[in-house]
Amino acid sequence: MNVGLVGVTGYSGSVLYELLLHHPNVDHINLYGHSQTEAQSLEKVLPQLRRRDNILPYDSADIMKNNQMVFFATSAGVTTELAAPFIEANFPVIDLAGDYRLKSRESYEKWYKKPAPKEEYLKKSFYGLTDFVNSKGQTYVCNPGCYATTTLLALAPLVQNHLIDPSSIVVDAKSGTSGAGKKLTELTHFTQTDENLQLYKVNQHQHIPEIVQQLKIWDESVPYIQFTTTLLPLTRGIMASCYAKAKDNVTEDDVRAAFVRTYSDDTFVNATEGVFPTLKQVTGTNFCDIGYQLNPVTHQIVIVSVLDNLLKGAAGQAIQNFNQMFDYAPETGLDLIPVLL
Amino acid sequence: MNVGLVGVTGYSGSVLYELLLHHPNVDHINLYGHSQTEAQSLEKVLPQLRRRDNILPYDSADIMKNNQMVFFATSAGVTTELAAPFIEANFPVIDLAGDYRLKSRESYEKWYKKPAPKEEYLKKSFYGLTDFVNSKGQTYVCNPGCYATTTLLALAPLVQNHLIDPSSIVVDAKSGTSGAGKKLTELTHFTQTDENLQLYKVNQHQHIPEIVQQLKIWDESVPYIQFTTTLLPLTRGIMASCYAKAKDNVTEDDVRAAFVRTYSDDTFVNATEGVFPTLKQVTGTNFCDIGYQLNPVTHQIVIVSVLDNLLKGAAGQAIQNFNQMFDYAPETGLDLIPVLL
Amino acid sequence: MNVGLVGVTGYSGSVLYELLLHHPNVDHINLYGHSQTEAQSLEKVLPQLRRRDNILPYDSADIMKNNQMVFFATSAGVTTELAAPFIEANFPVIDLAGDYRLKSRESYEKWYKKPAPKEEYLKKSFYGLTDFVNSKGQTYVCNPGCYATTTLLALAPLVQNHLIDPSSIVVDAKSGTSGAGKKLTELTHFTQTDENLQLYKVNQHQHIPEIVQQLKIWDESVPYIQFTTTLLPLTRGIMASCYAKAKDNVTEDDVRAAFVRTYSDDTFVNATEGVFPTLKQVTGTNFCDIGYQLNPVTHQIVIVSVLDNLLKGAAGQAIQNFNQMFDYAPETGLDLIPVLL
Amino acid sequence: MNVGLVGVTGYSGSVLYELLLHHPNVDHINLYGHSQTEAQSLEKVLPQLRRRDNILPYDSADIMKNNQMVFFATSAGVTTELAAPFIEANFPVIDLAGDYRLKSRESYEKWYKKPAPKEEYLKKSFYGLTDFVNSKGQTYVCNPGCYATTTLLALAPLVQNHLIDPSSIVVDAKSGTSGAGKKLTELTHFTQTDENLQLYKVNQHQHIPEIVQQLKIWDESVPYIQFTTTLLPLTRGIMASCYAKAKDNVTEDDVRAAFVRTYSDDTFVNATEGVFPTLKQVTGTNFCDIGYQLNPVTHQIVIVSVLDNLLKGAAGQAIQNFNQMFDYAPETGLDLIPVLL
Repeated sequence: MNVGLVGVTGYSGSVLYELLLHHPNVDHINLYGHSQTEAQSLEKVLPQLRRRDNILPYDSADIMKNNQMVFFATSAGVTTELAAPFIEANFPVIDLAGDYRLKSRESYEKWYKKPAPKEEYLKKSFYGLTDFVNSKGQTYVCNPGCYATTTLLALAPLVQNHLIDPSSIVVDAKSGTSGAGKKLTELTHFTQTDENLQLYKVNQHQHIPEIVQQLKIWDESVPYIQFTTTLLPLTRGIMASCYAKAKDNVTEDDVRAAFVRTYSDDTFVNATEGVFPTLKQVTGTNFCDIGYQLNPVTHQIVIVSVLDNLLKGAAGQAIQNFNQMFDYAPETGLDLIPVLL
Repeated sequence: MNVGLVGVTGYSGSVLYELLLHHPNVDHINLYGHSQTEAQSLEKVLPQLRRRDNILPYDSADIMKNNQMVFFATSAGVTTELAAPFIEANFPVIDLAGDYRLKSRESYEKWYKKPAPKEEYLKKSFYGLTDFVNSKGQTYVCNPGCYATTTLLALAPLVQNHLIDPSSIVVDAKSGTSGAGKKLTELTHFTQTDENLQLYKVNQHQHIPEIVQQLKIWDESVPYIQFTTTLLPLTRGIMASCYAKAKDNVTEDDVRAAFVRTYSDDTFVNATEGVFPTLKQVTGTNFCDIGYQLNPVTHQIVIVSVLDNLLKGAAGQAIQNFNQMFDYAPETGLDLIPVLL
Repeated sequence: MNVGLVGVTGYSGSVLYELLLHHPNVDHINLYGHSQTEAQSLEKVLPQLRRRDNILPYDSADIMKNNQMVFFATSAGVTTELAAPFIEANFPVIDLAGDYRLKSRESYEKWYKKPAPKEEYLKKSFYGLTDFVNSKGQTYVCNPGCYATTTLLALAPLVQNHLIDPSSIVVDAKSGTSGAGKKLTELTHFTQTDENLQLYKVNQHQHIPEIVQQLKIWDESVPYIQFTTTLLPLTRGIMASCYAKAKDNVTEDDVRAAFVRTYSDDTFVNATEGVFPTLKQVTGTNFCDIGYQLNPVTHQIVIVSVLDNLLKGAAGQAIQNFNQMFDYAPETGLDLIPVLL
Repeated sequence: MNVGLVGVTGYSGSVLYELLLHHPNVDHINLYGHSQTEAQSLEKVLPQLRRRDNILPYDSADIMKNNQMVFFATSAGVTTELAAPFIEANFPVIDLAGDYRLKSRESYEKWYKKPAPKEEYLKKSFYGLTDFVNSKGQTYVCNPGCYATTTLLALAPLVQNHLIDPSSIVVDAKSGTSGAGKKLTELTHFTQTDENLQLYKVNQHQHIPEIVQQLKIWDESVPYIQFTTTLLPLTRGIMASCYAKAKDNVTEDDVRAAFVRTYSDDTFVNATEGVFPTLKQVTGTNFCDIGYQLNPVTHQIVIVSVLDNLLKGAAGQAIQNFNQMFDYAPETGLDLIPVLL
C-alpha cells in the first residue's frame, strides 16, 4: 500500500513519517509539501531523517492517483482550505490537525479564530478517538488533539458511568515544548523556558471545546471543564492531572470497576488505582498510562494521565486510526522501544 | 547582634546563612551542628560557601549565652527533641522545620509519623506567616512550609472574604528538586528526574494539615483541600495552581477587590488579575507573585502563585520573621538580585 | 535462537533487552540475575518494561543448556568471577563490561582497581569494535566501552593513516548521566547536576588504557592520549571533541580521503567534513556521527563524534557483535526510530 | 554619582542594571535606548525588573550632561557608530561590546564582518581585563568578552611564565544559552537545545582574535590557539577546558608556583591544583574558579576555568572596571549571593 503524507517537516509529521517507514503494511510513502510548487530534497530540509526521498509539490489529483490514503500533518487552517477534493471523492484521509474536529462551525471560528470548514464536510468527518470508536469504513478521520486525548482518556470511565458531579471537573494539564511546534517564540526560547514554568492560553486553549464536545456525547449533563495548560522545561510528553467530585454514594469500588471495565482490554491504555504514572514511563511509546484514586477525605477523584504528545497524542494515534481504517491489528507498527530512563 | 544558626548544611540552611551574612543588622553568625560533638570546618563541608567559619558543637546553653536568637534549619524531629531549653527560657527561636507548626499533637503524629512536641510547648509557638501576622514579641516562631506559604498566599483573599465554596478547593502544586533536600533518592536521581514529572505523597503531604489549619482560622467552614504535588525537572521554585468555585453571586469585581485589599500594601506579594506569573520571575527573590482570574464559563477562580522555595518559601520568610521579631524594616536583607532570565 | 541475558536491571541491560525483543532472529530471551538465588518477577523490578518474564537465578550450566549464547550486562568484576565456565566450554559470550578488554592484567588492575581475569582467558577474548573487526567465529567478545567507541571512531582514520603527530591527541569527552548508571551519587543528584558541568576522573578514567591499547594496534607510535570527561545535565549521549596536530605536509584532501575511505561503506558511522554533529541527532539510534575539519591556522584537526552511549556505545554495538557472530546482516534489529527533536 | 546605561534590555544590560542598583556609590542610573526616539516605560519592556524607571531616548549630549560616566551594553556595531562624541570629549565609557577590543581594524572587520571604528579611537581604548590591568584614569574601557575572560584567566599564569609550548594551546569552551542573547534562533529553540550539545562558529568565533591579541602581549611567541565553542542545555555559565603541552623541563612545582603567584591576591580568581571546579559553584557570583593539573603521562597541563558569563564574563567585570576607574574597593557592589545549589 502507498500512502501520502502532507506536512513531514513539523514535529508530528516527522514522527509519523518514521512510524510509517517501520509499518509492515506500508510499501511506499509519498511526501507532499502543501506550500511547495516544486520537488524539494528531504535531506536538505530534515538531514537528521537520513532519507533520500523528495518532498513533492502538492496536487490533490496526483495524491489520490498515487496513494490509497493520505495523512495531513499540517497546521490548523490548511485542510479547511485543501481537503474538499478528498471529501468529495470519498478518498481516505487522516487529518492530524484540528480543522474538522469541532462539529460546530461557530465554535471552531471562536476558538481557532479562522474560517471553519463547510457544514456538509464537517458532517462527514469522524472523530477518531481510537480507544472508544473504530475508524473502519470512515473516509475523513480527525485525529484527536494531544491534550484532548490525554484528558478524555482520564475522564472517560467516570463520565461514561456518571460517577462524578458533571460541573466539578478541573484539569491541570502540563506539556513539554514539542507540543508548541517548531516556530520560534519567546515562550520556547531556551533561556526563557529552562528552569521555568509558564502558563499559556488559560481558559482559551482550543482543545477545551474538543474535550467538552466529546464529554457531552458521553454524558449530556457535563456543562464545561476548568482547563489550564502549563509549559514544562522538557521536550516530550503531556500530563493531565484531573480532579472531579465523586457523586455522594460513589465508592472506591465503583471507581475501580469503571476503569477496569473500560480499559482492561485496551492495547494502549493502562489504568492503575493508587499508583500515579511518571511522564517518562510513556516517552517514546504509544501508551497512555493512568493512575486514579478516590480521596476519602475530600471525596474528590484524582486522575493523572500521561502520554507522549507526538505518539499517542498525535502520530501514534494516527497510526491507530490507520490500522482501524484498513483493518490491521491495533498494535501494528506501534511496538516501539521506549526511552525508559 | 549575634545570631545562632543550627543546620547550615542543608539547602535552606545555606541560603539562610548567605542572607544573614548580608543582613545589615547581623554582626556575627555562630553556626552549630546539632549532631556534632566537636567543631568542624565549614570550608570542608561546604567549600562553595567560601567561608572560613567553624561549625560549633551543639550546646543549648552556649547558644543562648552567645547569641540574641537562634534559627533552626533542621529536619523534622530535631527541634521536638532539642527546643525545650529555649522555650523554657523564652529565648527567641525561629524554627524553619515543621515540628511546632501543627497545634494538634495527633495531627502531627499522623502526618509526620514522629512523636509530637509537648502540648504546652505547642501552645507557645507562633505560626509566622509574615504577610498576615507579626512575630514581634514572639519567642518561638514557626516559619511556614514552602508549599503552605505558596498555597495560603494564593487562597487567603478568597477564603478570608468568603468568596468561594469552602469544599471546592483544589491545589495542583509543583516543585523543583531543591525542596526535596540533599538526601540522595531515586526520585531525585538525575537520570530519573530529567525530562520527567513525578507525583509524590498524593493526598499524604505533611503540608496539607498545615494549610487546612490556617484556612480554618480564616474561615471555619473550610473542611479540607484537595492537594497534589508534582516534582519538576528544575532546581528552584514552587508553583501552586489553585482552583475553587466562586460562590454564586461573586463577581470579578469582588475577586479583584479582595486581592487588591489584601496585597496592595504587601512588600513581597504581588497579585495581578488575568496575568499568570512564570516560575522564574521570582527565582532568587523573596517575592510571591500571584495571578488570578474568574472564569465566567465555569465560575471557577484560577489562582496561580509562585515563589522561590528556598527564599520566600524558607530562608527568606525566616528573615522576614527575624525582621518582625526585632522590628527591622520588612525588606531589610531581602533586596536580592533576581536570577531573572 | 534462544539467548541469555545476565544483568537486565542496569540501563544498558534494559536497553539491550528491548533490542533483543525486537530482533527478528531471537526467539526467546532468558533473563538471569547474577546475584539471585531464586526467580524474580521482572515486572516488580522494572515495571516500565511492561513484561511478564521472570529473572532466573544464575546458573552457568543452565545458561549454556538453554541458550545458544549469552550477554553479560554486568558491572566490572562480575565476569572476571563468573565467565570461566563459558570460556572453558567455548560457549559464545558477548560481555558489555570492561573485564576482558585490556590485554594487560597489570593495566586492568591499575585502572579498575580489581583483580584481573586469568592471562589465558584474556588471550581468548576478542575486542569487538564492530566497525573495524568482525566477531564471526569468536566466542568471547568484549563489547567496547562507550567513551572508547566514541573516541576510537573519531581518531581511527587519522591514526591508521598516520596523519597526525601521535603525541598530540587531546580528547575532551562529555557524557550524559545515564553513563554513570543507576547508583545514587552526589554527582548525579538532580539538584547538583542540573544547570551544571562536572569533571570527573580527570586523567584517571578506565577507558583511557582501552583507547590507547587500540590506537597502538593501529599505530604503534601513539604513546598516550590526553583525555578528560565532563558530566552533562542531560540523560543520553556522548560527544568526544578530539584535537590532534596534523603532520606538516598533511592537507585537507588527505584528511577527507582518510575519513571517506574508512567510513563510506560503514552502516552506522557517518563522517562529514566541516559539519559538526549535534548530540541529539543520534539519540535513540545506533549511529555514530562525526564531523571533522583541518584548521588551516593552527594545523590542528578537530574531530567531533557523537553517539548514544546506551546504543552504539553499549547495547546497540552489542547487537552488532551478535549479528557478526551469527552472520546476520549488520543492521538487523537496529533500524531504530530516532528521538530526533 | 549618576551613571548612564545604554542597552538595559539585553541580558547583560539587565544584570548590569541590577548590580548598579545595589552599588553603594551609585546614586542614580539613567537608562537610554540607542534606537529610541522617545521615552519608554521600563516596566512595559522588562516587567520582571519591577522598576518604575523610564528608558530615555538616546542623546549623547544629554548623557554626558547628566552622568559622570556611561555603560554601553549594546551589540557589536552600535558603539562603532555612537561612541565618537564620548571619545572626543574624553567622557568615561565602559563598553561591554566587542567593537573596540581588537586593536587591528582588519582583524575586527574579518571576524565581526562589520566596519571597524576609526584607528585613532582604537588607540585610545583600553582593554580592561581587570585581574591584570587597572582602568583608573582610562576613559574608554573595553570590557573583555565572556569567552576571552574565561580563557585568558586560565592561560595567563602559563603564558606569562613561558611554561608551555606556545603553539600547543587547545581550548574546548562550553557556554550556556544566555551568552547567545535574547534573539530567537533555532540554536536556542528549547526543543532543539534541550538534551543536546551543539557546536557553533568552530574556528570562527570572534573571541579568538581577542584572546590571541592578549596572549601575544604576554608572550609574543604564541602564534594562535585552537578554540571550539559548544552550546550547553543550561542558561548560565561558561567553562573553558584548556590544554597545553608543558615545556620539557617544566615541573608540577613550576605550574603551581605560577598560579599561586598570579592569583593569590586576586579578589575574584581562585586557582586550585588538582581540583576541578563545577560550573554551578560560580553561578550568580563574580568569581572565576580555576582547576589545573600537569598530567605526568602526557606532560599536558589541563586547566579548567568557570565563570558566570553574565557576571565575571560581562556585567560583573564591568563593575570591576567601574570600581577601578573611580578608585572604589575591588569588591564594591560585587558581594553577591551565589545560586550555590
